[in-house]
Amino acid sequence: MAFRERILFSMTLEAKESMNIHLIQFNPIVGDLVGNAEKIIHHIRQGKQKGANLVVFSECALTGYPPEDLLLLPHFIDDVDYKLQLIASETQGISAIVGTPRKNPHAGEKPLYNSAAILGDGEIIGFQDKVLLPTYDVFDERRYFESGKDIALWEIGGKKVAITVCEDIWHHSEAVIQSSYEKDPIILFNQLEPELLINISSSPYSVNKPTVRFNVCTKAAQTLNCPVLLCNQVGANDSLIFDGYSLFCDKNGELLACASGFQEETLEIDLSKSYKPISWKINTEKNLFSALVLGVRDYFHKQGFKSACLGLSGGIDSAVVACIAAEALGKENVTVLCMPSRYSSDASKTDAERLAQNLGIKPLWISIESPFQNFLDLLEPHFEGKSPDTTEENLQARTRGIILMAFSNKYGHVVLSTGNKSEMAMGYATLYGDMCGGLGVLNDVTKRQVYALAEWINRDKEIIPRNIIEKPPSAELRPDQKDSDSLPDYEIVDAVLEDYIIDHLSPEQIADKHEYPLDLVEDLVKRIHQSEYKRRQSPPGLRVSEKAFSVGRRFPIVQKWGN
Amino acid sequence: MAFRERILFSMTLEAKESMNIHLIQFNPIVGDLVGNAEKIIHHIRQGKQKGANLVVFSECALTGYPPEDLLLLPHFIDDVDYKLQLIASETQGISAIVGTPRKNPHAGEKPLYNSAAILGDGEIIGFQDKVLLPTYDVFDERRYFESGKDIALWEIGGKKVAITVCEDIWHHSEAVIQSSYEKDPIILFNQLEPELLINISSSPYSVNKPTVRFNVCTKAAQTLNCPVLLCNQVGANDSLIFDGYSLFCDKNGELLACASGFQEETLEIDLSKSYKPISWKINTEKNLFSALVLGVRDYFHKQGFKSACLGLSGGIDSAVVACIAAEALGKENVTVLCMPSRYSSDASKTDAERLAQNLGIKPLWISIESPFQNFLDLLEPHFEGKSPDTTEENLQARTRGIILMAFSNKYGHVVLSTGNKSEMAMGYATLYGDMCGGLGVLNDVTKRQVYALAEWINRDKEIIPRNIIEKPPSAELRPDQKDSDSLPDYEIVDAVLEDYIIDHLSPEQIADKHEYPLDLVEDLVKRIHQSEYKRRQSPPGLRVSEKAFSVGRRFPIVQKWGN
Repeated sequence: MAFRERILFSMTLEAKESMNIHLIQFNPIVGDLVGNAEKIIHHIRQGKQKGANLVVFSECALTGYPPEDLLLLPHFIDDVDYKLQLIASETQGISAIVGTPRKNPHAGEKPLYNSAAILGDGEIIGFQDKVLLPTYDVFDERRYFESGKDIALWEIGGKKVAITVCEDIWHHSEAVIQSSYEKDPIILFNQLEPELLINISSSPYSVNKPTVRFNVCTKAAQTLNCPVLLCNQVGANDSLIFDGYSLFCDKNGELLACASGFQEETLEIDLSKSYKPISWKINTEKNLFSALVLGVRDYFHKQGFKSACLGLSGGIDSAVVACIAAEALGKENVTVLCMPSRYSSDASKTDAERLAQNLGIKPLWISIESPFQNFLDLLEPHFEGKSPDTTEENLQARTRGIILMAFSNKYGHVVLSTGNKSEMAMGYATLYGDMCGGLGVLNDVTKRQVYALAEWINRDKEIIPRNIIEKPPSAELRPDQKDSDSLPDYEIVDAVLEDYIIDHLSPEQIADKHEYPLDLVEDLVKRIHQSEYKRRQSPPGLRVSEKAFSVGRRFPIVQKWGN
Repeated sequence: MAFRERILFSMTLEAKESMNIHLIQFNPIVGDLVGNAEKIIHHIRQGKQKGANLVVFSECALTGYPPEDLLLLPHFIDDVDYKLQLIASETQGISAIVGTPRKNPHAGEKPLYNSAAILGDGEIIGFQDKVLLPTYDVFDERRYFESGKDIALWEIGGKKVAITVCEDIWHHSEAVIQSSYEKDPIILFNQLEPELLINISSSPYSVNKPTVRFNVCTKAAQTLNCPVLLCNQVGANDSLIFDGYSLFCDKNGELLACASGFQEETLEIDLSKSYKPISWKINTEKNLFSALVLGVRDYFHKQGFKSACLGLSGGIDSAVVACIAAEALGKENVTVLCMPSRYSSDASKTDAERLAQNLGIKPLWISIESPFQNFLDLLEPHFEGKSPDTTEENLQARTRGIILMAFSNKYGHVVLSTGNKSEMAMGYATLYGDMCGGLGVLNDVTKRQVYALAEWINRDKEIIPRNIIEKPPSAELRPDQKDSDSLPDYEIVDAVLEDYIIDHLSPEQIADKHEYPLDLVEDLVKRIHQSEYKRRQSPPGLRVSEKAFSVGRRFPIVQKWGN
């Protein structure tokens, strides 16, 4: 079927004096068709009460995004159909745009479209199907969806409106580097001369993403010479965090209104009103912290868990995770265990105690000395003549893991693991030890970002004791151990990480760029590949970078390249 | 760019009296461009010596399949190009077809094609790019590849030859249910009237797959009215096991020659010779056992590991895994630990000891009583007033996990985990306990299949003691525990598993089909969803079914459908 354009559907919404649009930036739960449909209906009713003409919901608002292989279940899709009818029946006297998968009525490779359903007069008026289907990084849309076969304008409140789903406005600004699509829906729409563009998105957060997304809207507005409304999902689903920041910009791409980041909000736009441009402001550390807090909170609350536990070592990673957990769940719902060994320094113990105090949490102290010694004794006859090595280090980390998991089992706490991206990259973590947990809060946060977060947490007063920030990092698993015994400076690790993982530079290019010795870079790359097996068993992590291990980066364990 | 057909390239291979084709069913290592290229060159040279006109290699033979995100590294692709030139330079006086990714020279969504490179006269003569790109189940080809834009015949040895890559012959026989492609390359080729079809594949094993694949070839031969040669990859890469079974069938689809399953082999075909049809014979249990053995062996040897360790409980799962490991690695490379607790029955201890004896392995006995009691004492003040529950059961499993991992660290053994698919589905396993390991040998093998494997292992003499097969399954983590205390019969679990996981039936449909109570089915489906978080942290498993958890089934952890 050839691609169709220039087809003008007419929407039965009468032209009114004013044009009130509500962008519903809401937080769906994946697969919760009952709950999500109820929330959508609630917002439609509220929109009616408040005199809105049009209520707009984000991409796949009905299913939550990403629904993944739920989309393969026929009874799930049947229920999506049914719920959409139910929602449509609520649109007497108001219109709504609802993101939802829908059955592909044509012959095609895949049985579904990823669509914006246009609802009004109590009925489903039509669909705009997503044309560009991201299939890279964390996205797998070609696994489920057929590419939309046409674009059209809709007459809403007397205006000719273009409706697009997420990626369809991205290609135009050259912000997508992983796919070079053959079509550019913005260029196609431009021939139809729309008076307004509405984009519904489920565009996940990464550190620079909100600003990039705003620029994408600006560019679309300028090309189409019309205002742009973007309605983005908010909330976290597994590893992906959606930041919201739904927005309204004028035909010059000037920002006129913007919803908050990282929380539900209804952005009410009156197109007949005149707005003054506002400036685009983002605080990077605040956003990163907010993203992680939202990621933890939604992981817990969407599953019905209330409380977390974690091990506090006196180091910076667990300190930052404790702060995030206290913010996300309430300090009363965070159990911290201090589990010193014979190698724990007095300073670490003091630092851990002080941090807990600052957070208003009473830590539980459980020395691992006795079970650790018990294991050493038990294994001694089997390890005769063998020198101590990482075996004994891992035994300590795993003993701590067992204790944390026992608290988890007994009290229903979810364990938070505290390893950061730099350590996960290097394999500097113990599988079934400090890698235990339901969620890896810092899995995608580099060591340098952990320090930046600590400074941001301390911005008003010292919560994380200064000594935790300033002392050299150590796992304290053998006498006087320092991370720098086994690893180069985190500055170097993080630079290689960025260049190799995100930008796909070769070791030679990385060595040249930073003037590092080639063998150093090759060694780090080798460590990244060789610890793939560990990461494969790590708890799911919260994605905050352009390229997170596991969720957006899919590497074989058994392979020889760079290895 | 529109799809082109009917274009006839001419290949510079002169017509000879005979037409000798070598199908090289070989086992590449993913990412090992140096090693794979060397092997390819070796087979080309050997082909020349033996008077072959054409040497055929499997899909992505140069990179190994699946190369996953290695395909996103520009320096990797540059090296693929370079190695292909090197291989081409070896084709003086012989032709070769080599599966490889190649750069997409046209504008397009993705920068690569998945191609068959046609080599001869020391040069790259051309490419046939794969048209149908599987993007379902374990396949993600749209993540990397652009769909081929044309098909063509090649003149080889005076014959008009159609060359296809894997999926391109599958759609025609309606064997692909997950995608209904708009094009059917077999129908397109039929217009060109080829005299021979060559298909290069990396088609992974599942229990019924070899037979389905043979039928796919039969159907293509019958439609095209010409013989078909299929060259399939063999070997295991991470979770995927490739069975080989490269074959030659005549224009009626009759099987004329077939390579062995699960091992490297060169299938030499002389097209001028007359062959007698042979029958297609598959032993299901033997194949399943061979697949698992190959999966273990390649996981170890391709990474340079020699030895395994595992816990032997006296139950059927660890018994079957011990047999597989001994076959894959040699009994001298398998360390088995028997780690009884206060709840282990005498029968289990005797059974474990006898099994080990039968395998010629001396088991190590390490009671977990002391560390288990130590943990109970340590935690007692923190768990005051709480009744024993799964906490204490998991403590035992995790203590065993720690001991196994200590042996792994100290001796370089890779731990094999022994949980089966039915248990993994139900969450009937302890995270960081019996789920510890580098590889989950039975992750995709149902409990019923485990019993079938045990019978097959015992086909000539009793290796697995009869009592292990006949006693009711138990985790032995509390007094007189039986699996049936917490789970319905495995017969029921496995039926629900098959219907829900593979066939995507709804709970209502499943209940109707088997006349099970609906609430029983709903409870089992709920358990499947609720244990997603555990499976996400399980070791990679060997895939042997049409739908394996994790690798081919991608479900959110945080979601509410059926949950």
